[in-house]
Amino acid sequence: MSSKLEQARALDAADALAHFRERFLIADPEMIYLDGNSLGRLPLCAETSMADLLRRQWGERLIRSWNEGWFTLPERVGGKLAQLVGAQADEVIVADSTSINLFKLAVAGLRLQRSRRRILTDDLNFPSDVYILQGIVEMLDAGHRLEIVHSEDGVHGPVEALLAALDEDVALVVLSHTVFKSGYMYDMRAITEAVHAVGALVLWDLSHSVGSAPVALNAAGADLAVGCTYKYVNGGPGAPAFLYVRRDLQERLQNPISGWMGQRAPFDFALDYAPEVGIRRFLTGTPPVLSLAMIEPGVDLLLEAGLEALRAKSVQQTSFLISLWEERLAPLGYTLKSPRQAERRGSHISLGHPEGWRINQALIHDLGVLPDFRAPDNIRLGVAPLYTSFIDVYAAAERLQRAVEERIYMRHSSGRATVT
Amino acid sequence: MSSKLEQARALDAADALAHFRERFLIADPEMIYLDGNSLGRLPLCAETSMADLLRRQWGERLIRSWNEGWFTLPERVGGKLAQLVGAQADEVIVADSTSINLFKLAVAGLRLQRSRRRILTDDLNFPSDVYILQGIVEMLDAGHRLEIVHSEDGVHGPVEALLAALDEDVALVVLSHTVFKSGYMYDMRAITEAVHAVGALVLWDLSHSVGSAPVALNAAGADLAVGCTYKYVNGGPGAPAFLYVRRDLQERLQNPISGWMGQRAPFDFALDYAPEVGIRRFLTGTPPVLSLAMIEPGVDLLLEAGLEALRAKSVQQTSFLISLWEERLAPLGYTLKSPRQAERRGSHISLGHPEGWRINQALIHDLGVLPDFRAPDNIRLGVAPLYTSFIDVYAAAERLQRAVEERIYMRHSSGRATVT
Repeated sequence: MSSKLEQARALDAADALAHFRERFLIADPEMIYLDGNSLGRLPLCAETSMADLLRRQWGERLIRSWNEGWFTLPERVGGKLAQLVGAQADEVIVADSTSINLFKLAVAGLRLQRSRRRILTDDLNFPSDVYILQGIVEMLDAGHRLEIVHSEDGVHGPVEALLAALDEDVALVVLSHTVFKSGYMYDMRAITEAVHAVGALVLWDLSHSVGSAPVALNAAGADLAVGCTYKYVNGGPGAPAFLYVRRDLQERLQNPISGWMGQRAPFDFALDYAPEVGIRRFLTGTPPVLSLAMIEPGVDLLLEAGLEALRAKSVQQTSFLISLWEERLAPLGYTLKSPRQAERRGSHISLGHPEGWRINQALIHDLGVLPDFRAPDNIRLGVAPLYTSFIDVYAAAERLQRAVEERIYMRHSSGRATVT
Repeated sequence: MSSKLEQARALDAADALAHFRERFLIADPEMIYLDGNSLGRLPLCAETSMADLLRRQWGERLIRSWNEGWFTLPERVGGKLAQLVGAQADEVIVADSTSINLFKLAVAGLRLQRSRRRILTDDLNFPSDVYILQGIVEMLDAGHRLEIVHSEDGVHGPVEALLAALDEDVALVVLSHTVFKSGYMYDMRAITEAVHAVGALVLWDLSHSVGSAPVALNAAGADLAVGCTYKYVNGGPGAPAFLYVRRDLQERLQNPISGWMGQRAPFDFALDYAPEVGIRRFLTGTPPVLSLAMIEPGVDLLLEAGLEALRAKSVQQTSFLISLWEERLAPLGYTLKSPRQAERRGSHISLGHPEGWRINQALIHDLGVLPDFRAPDNIRLGVAPLYTSFIDVYAAAERLQRAVEERIYMRHSSGRATVT
């Protein structure tokens, strides 16, 4: 037996979090799911919650349910999410999508920094975040400039270049805390301090961090953040996103999409908008309750497991995967496209290969592995420490090996993904 | 037996749509639900759909479900909704909330009409729509003026004043097709023609029309529209909204919240935003799939019943309610705060009363009726022709009568609603 396989078994046997796997639907134990960073698994208790939500809350209580919990769901679930990101309960709220929230907070931030014209981001950021910023610059038509700082190797965040670009004309710096391709994780505190030193604001996208690693927004002094709940939070497909505004900024920022859910007294139906005090002012319309309520089971599981323990397991797993890559996959042409330094790495590993797209097809269709793929050649292997086992990691590496050694990838032509 | 009761029974017996009531959960047949205009009832088949969505689509198929139907859900459900509002399938898409959609389309419309500075609405519009417009004017900071035309009686739309206010500096007219307090329904074609005559655009909020009456966007030549799916469409609490853009306008309008779901090739992950051709460009972020998918059962039921038949029943029911008011409620101090003319009336009736708030409390807590209440004294009685029976309407009127005659409302103090 391979020593790596023994090692995987020993790690699983010693894993104090292993039992959390049973709290999720694992329909096909042979299938290795390494895409929890795109869509987390279904927590079993979500089915029970949803049955109650449909029949009792919607079907029986009908409109009364708005007074019996729905109205405050955004801040109730937000308050729990706050614990995952190192914030106060009244600094986080669930609303809309990550992109909409980014729009709200970025526009609000720019309005607060009226005399400044530069917006900085990097080319490792989610394209959607960059698109949103491009749209804002065009819409405001006020001479803002979006500057995209480039990573030298496409893996590590361009920290030095970002710091060098800071000056007193910078209004806003927008970065993914953990970047979606390589999994590079910024030092939030160091960047935030540097941005503050020139009087600018920083807006963090936490989508690829939250639920896999502790985030310390308050400790870092972070101003603004957004994040997604359908990845490591296991909130379900397209589950609403969250936003964070540091408490002392809340009353100074104006939500540009000022809808009735952010109004101080929404049931007065007055015709003049007056923002609610506190984080609710960043709400806009009526939230999608079915999707919103299903975030809670996933958050509860994360809180029960504990973020420190989850992070420790995640680092063990990505480190184990790197050691497997080094021993078995590097000789087959796979390149490591994620940081080796554990503290600068999120919870996924990207492997490149000249035949990356075909290998990815072979993994999905022939080898029972579900990773995901990011152009041009990244096979992205996401470890979700709540339910990924070390044997999963081992088996995935073994199947990556077979895909090339046994030329299984050659069954597939070069095509293109349409979705993840 | 009262002749009105006999009449109600006869109307139910003759109602070809009566059997649709069995397709909904009616947990307590004694409870008269007249708030389908705030939250529609639960279609029974939604429970089956949701069970499959959770266990098979999310739990088993996981990320693959994006390619197996989720990605195209916004336009698939949008295409069905198009049939309810008299539009082409490729002119309607499901996205975000009504308020967010209004923001997108209003900003896009203003950008198209760069040289014009006036925005018109009326004081019968949803406050949230007015708030959104106020926020836009402030955000764009480009000298736009929002003008709120006032209704003389608070019941009927101020048509003449609106027409008189039109000139070539008007960029955009934003109106609720059916207004939320009185239920007044604008003549969409006449208003649209007048707005077009001065070269302006019109944006209709269909939230209180869709699903209760046929809407004819194409026939009216309407430019833009938004609407909600959790009222008469029975899509579930806070279900995502829809937006409509007339086909020839789609390529001329720019979505100001330009996220990845509206990008031409979202899976290229390129850093430059290039809008998708057609209606998808008005999408922004990942949609809340659980809430979005549950819109479809409600839409299917409406299409099966047919909008013309539903509208005929709705008019019969609101007319019946007005006749009950005239005979039994007017003498008790209830005033009619909805139009008498059926063609200018949506599917709810508002009754005023000096003790409106306390009566409403009595209806809910003592008399088994769930209406809703809109300040200062409107008791809003919504008829949802898919599941409201004539006996429901009769019984509601009888209980309104008892609330005052038997002074049941006096058990309650004057307080204020927090939610609907």
